[in-house]
Order: sequence, then C-alpha cells, then structure tokens
Amino acid sequence: MSGLEAKRLSLNTATVREQWTLAECIDGCQRHGIGGIAPWRDKLHEMGVSAAARAIRSAGLTVTGLCRGGWFTERGAIDRETIDDNRRAVDEAAELDAACLVMVVGGLARDSRDLHGAWALVEEGLARTLEYARTVNMPVAIEPLHPMYAADRACVNTMRQALDICDRLGPGIGCAVDVYHVWWDFELATQLERAGPERILAFHLCDWLVPTRDLLTDRGMMGDGVIDLRGLRGLVEANGFTGLGEVEIFSSRDWWTRAPDVVLSTMIERGRTVC
Amino acid sequence: MSGLEAKRLSLNTATVREQWTLAECIDGCQRHGIGGIAPWRDKLHEMGVSAAARAIRSAGLTVTGLCRGGWFTERGAIDRETIDDNRRAVDEAAELDAACLVMVVGGLARDSRDLHGAWALVEEGLARTLEYARTVNMPVAIEPLHPMYAADRACVNTMRQALDICDRLGPGIGCAVDVYHVWWDFELATQLERAGPERILAFHLCDWLVPTRDLLTDRGMMGDGVIDLRGLRGLVEANGFTGLGEVEIFSSRDWWTRAPDVVLSTMIERGRTVC
Repeated sequence: MSGLEAKRLSLNTATVREQWTLAECIDGCQRHGIGGIAPWRDKLHEMGVSAAARAIRSAGLTVTGLCRGGWFTERGAIDRETIDDNRRAVDEAAELDAACLVMVVGGLARDSRDLHGAWALVEEGLARTLEYARTVNMPVAIEPLHPMYAADRACVNTMRQALDICDRLGPGIGCAVDVYHVWWDFELATQLERAGPERILAFHLCDWLVPTRDLLTDRGMMGDGVIDLRGLRGLVEANGFTGLGEVEIFSSRDWWTRAPDVVLSTMIERGRTVC
Repeated sequence: MSGLEAKRLSLNTATVREQWTLAECIDGCQRHGIGGIAPWRDKLHEMGVSAAARAIRSAGLTVTGLCRGGWFTERGAIDRETIDDNRRAVDEAAELDAACLVMVVGGLARDSRDLHGAWALVEEGLARTLEYARTVNMPVAIEPLHPMYAADRACVNTMRQALDICDRLGPGIGCAVDVYHVWWDFELATQLERAGPERILAFHLCDWLVPTRDLLTDRGMMGDGVIDLRGLRGLVEANGFTGLGEVEIFSSRDWWTRAPDVVLSTMIERGRTVC
C-alpha cells in the first residue's frame, strides 16, 4: 500500500485557520497540487458562498466536506433558529458541491447534566436537517467526536453510536471518520465494516500526540503521534471509501504558528510517507 | 434516593496524595467517619503492608480496592518482572482484605503504534494475573480508562471492551467503574446490566470539569462538573452493587493544594448532596 499523493489529499481550512483566508487556501491548494478542500463556514461566509464556489471550481478542487452543521443542544431545544442555520449549511454545501455536510452535533445543553436529553435533541436535529438535505441530495455526515468532547462539543462519541442513529434515520446520513476521534476504539474495524461505502462519507487525518497538552488545540501532524494512519486508511478503503484524505489539524502551539506553505508541503510529505 | 453518607464513602489515597501519608489517610478517615479506604501501592509500601493492614483493620475501615496492578504493555512483553509485580499486588490486596485489585492495564508499548499488539499483551497479562488471583480469591478489576488515555495509560477504554475480556477470561474478573472514565458512554446502562453484581467490583467518584485544563490532573470534586452522579450511582446499585462510593480526585491545581481535612469534609458534604 503506497502513501497518499498530494492529489489524494484535501486541506481542511482549520489546519491553517490562523494564517490564511479561504481564497488563500484555494490558491495554496492549487499551487501545491492538493486535490481537495474542506472549508469551514466562517471562512466561507467571509469570502461569500458564490465567489468561493466559483474559485474552488476554477481551481479544480474537490470539496470533501463543509464544516459544519449541528450544535443541536446549544439552545436547549430544536428551535427555528437552529433548524434554519442547519438548512443554510445544507444549501451552502450544495452550492459548493461538497461530498457531505459535516455535523458536530453538540454536547450537554448549558447548565445541564442530562445526557439522555442531549442525545434526544441531537437525534431530532439530525432528523430535521436530513429531511431537508434529502431534497437537495446533500449527504449528512455525523462526526463522532472523541469522548473527551462529550460535555461541550458532541455527545455522539463512537462509530457504533453514530451508526445506530444512522440506522434509525435511514438513507442520506452517514459518518465523517476522523482518526483523532476514533483511533482508540476496539470496535473500529467492525463498525467501519458495518458502515460500508454508503456511510463512510469523509476521512479526516491528523495525529494523537503523547503527551497531549490541550484537549482541543494540540493535535499533531500525521506521523508525529501514535495513530497507525496507514492501517486506518487501509480499513476505510477496504470498506469502500474512495475519497480524499482530509487533513484537519488544530494546533495552536505549532502548525498554526508556521508559514502556511510549510504546513502544506509538510502535510504532502507526510501523506506520502505515513498515510 | 438519598445521598451517600460518610460511612458509605471510601477515600482513595490519590485524592490527598500530595498532603497525606497512608497513616494520615487512615487516621483522617476514622476522624471524619468515612467508611473505607483505597490505598495506592506507593503509599502502601512506604508504610509497610502489614502495618497498614493492622492500622486499617483497627480503624474499622473497609478496603474498597488496591490501586493498582497492570501496566502490561510497559515492557513490550509479559515478562517475569511484570508477572511478579502483579502477583505481589495480588498478595498485598489479599493481606489488606481488599474488595479487589484494580488494574490499569497499560497503553501502547513504547515507540509503538500497534494497538492490536497492546490489546493482546493486556489480555495475556490479565489472564496470567487472574490465574494467580484465583488461588487467593482476590477479585481482579479491570478499570476501563477514558479513551484519552488509550496511548499512555490503558488501551481498555469502555465497559463493553472490558466485559468482552471478562467473558473470555471467566470467573474472578470484573470491572472498576469510575464515573470519570465512563460517564459519556451511550452504552453504559446496558453494559452495567450486562456486568451485573458479580462484575461491578468498585465504583469511583469524582466529576468532569468544563473546561478540563489538563488530561490527567484536572478532575473535579463531585458536584463541580457535569456528570449525573446520582443517576450513575442509581445505575450501579440497580445492577447489584452494594459497595462504597470511592472518591478518587486527581487535582493538581485545586484539591491537592488544600488542607486535607477540608478535602474530606467537602467530599462528605458532596456525597450527601450530589451522589
């Protein structure tokens, strides 16, 4: 199994979020021969959705996902504002011709310890968003986040849990598989097999550093941590995933402080050698 | 459901590890009317096992567990030294008449990304330890640690994973259920039911703080975080657990810096009000 060449990588804009605008990310991907991009909505809105869609198309980039919809627990109820924001996210993903809309579903509601209540809100929010997403053929991707984010970011924390939700909600919804969040799970291989090609909608790359000095912003460049990246890529591909490897690194101490062209050339080198 | 009175609490010595010796912990528990204690082996060795056993017995304290055996991946193989150290831990637990020997199984071997290899080492180490523990009737308790410790402390990270191992190894082995490690798991209720009274060997209490500022030493006093402690206690008791609630708080910024009598009186108050 050979590594991932640049054209089989996608740049998630979070990786250089402190350095580059979306326009600069698009330009950077084109210069470095990177095959795809995954914008975050804040950068997308800054540039304007239509302008971004045109620039991405003209650069010949695949959009591996739009980050992100979700946050269903934020307001303690699935209200009109939450539904509308998620519908807008679906529309934006469709305008970009994204492979999926990535959902970070939300953690516990504010001042709440009610995890069962949070799970119910999340499932309701996903169902409502999916209903709309089906009308525009936009796949919805639940991203199970690492259990250390259960309280404040996402209360869906394993592939099994995400796929149970997918089973209940039916077609049009699957998972974004981020190695950082799922690498530790003894059930990962069986759950990826259960997911199959229809439900592995994205594959995110970074690495788990030892020690990890911050719960959110101390993720590693591929190869600098302990995740068996080539093994995990083998697993998703054995289960039918044919998309790009999307590099998403939150790194306030390291990669967010470096020259972005160095970040891109490093991710390309590591894609070849360790992914 | 009323709270846990002092006599239904146990002090894990890690909670005041920076302030007190084991002798001081025993004395503190007695003065505060706390029903049990769970020593760590470093403090136990300082005091001497026989002296500690006598002092604990004469203070009328239950030993809810000995922390800890395990670390099976540390040396990359289950060698004589690893086996012998775990046998000594079993003997110490037996001398203390502990409810169980708590196992922190170890993470990835040094410089390894081979999680499957780590799982195999852990199961071999547990099987070898269990074989000996059965001869002295000492229950072995796998403590599934939070997935954020998979790399460097324990590669058994859910109740399901721990119980799968227990199923394969047979009688004499169960789980130590620590709310900090398992509270987020959507399968917790079903897995506790699967465990049953024979395999819920310990119940550890603290809280998950938001934000959590350090992966290891920023655990909260009960009530200061987001875990539904009374709900979880209800679950373990509904599944037959009748032991004490063992308070184990790693807190370098807060509880490790306070007067230990204040720590104990606070844990007693919180036991009554939130556990």
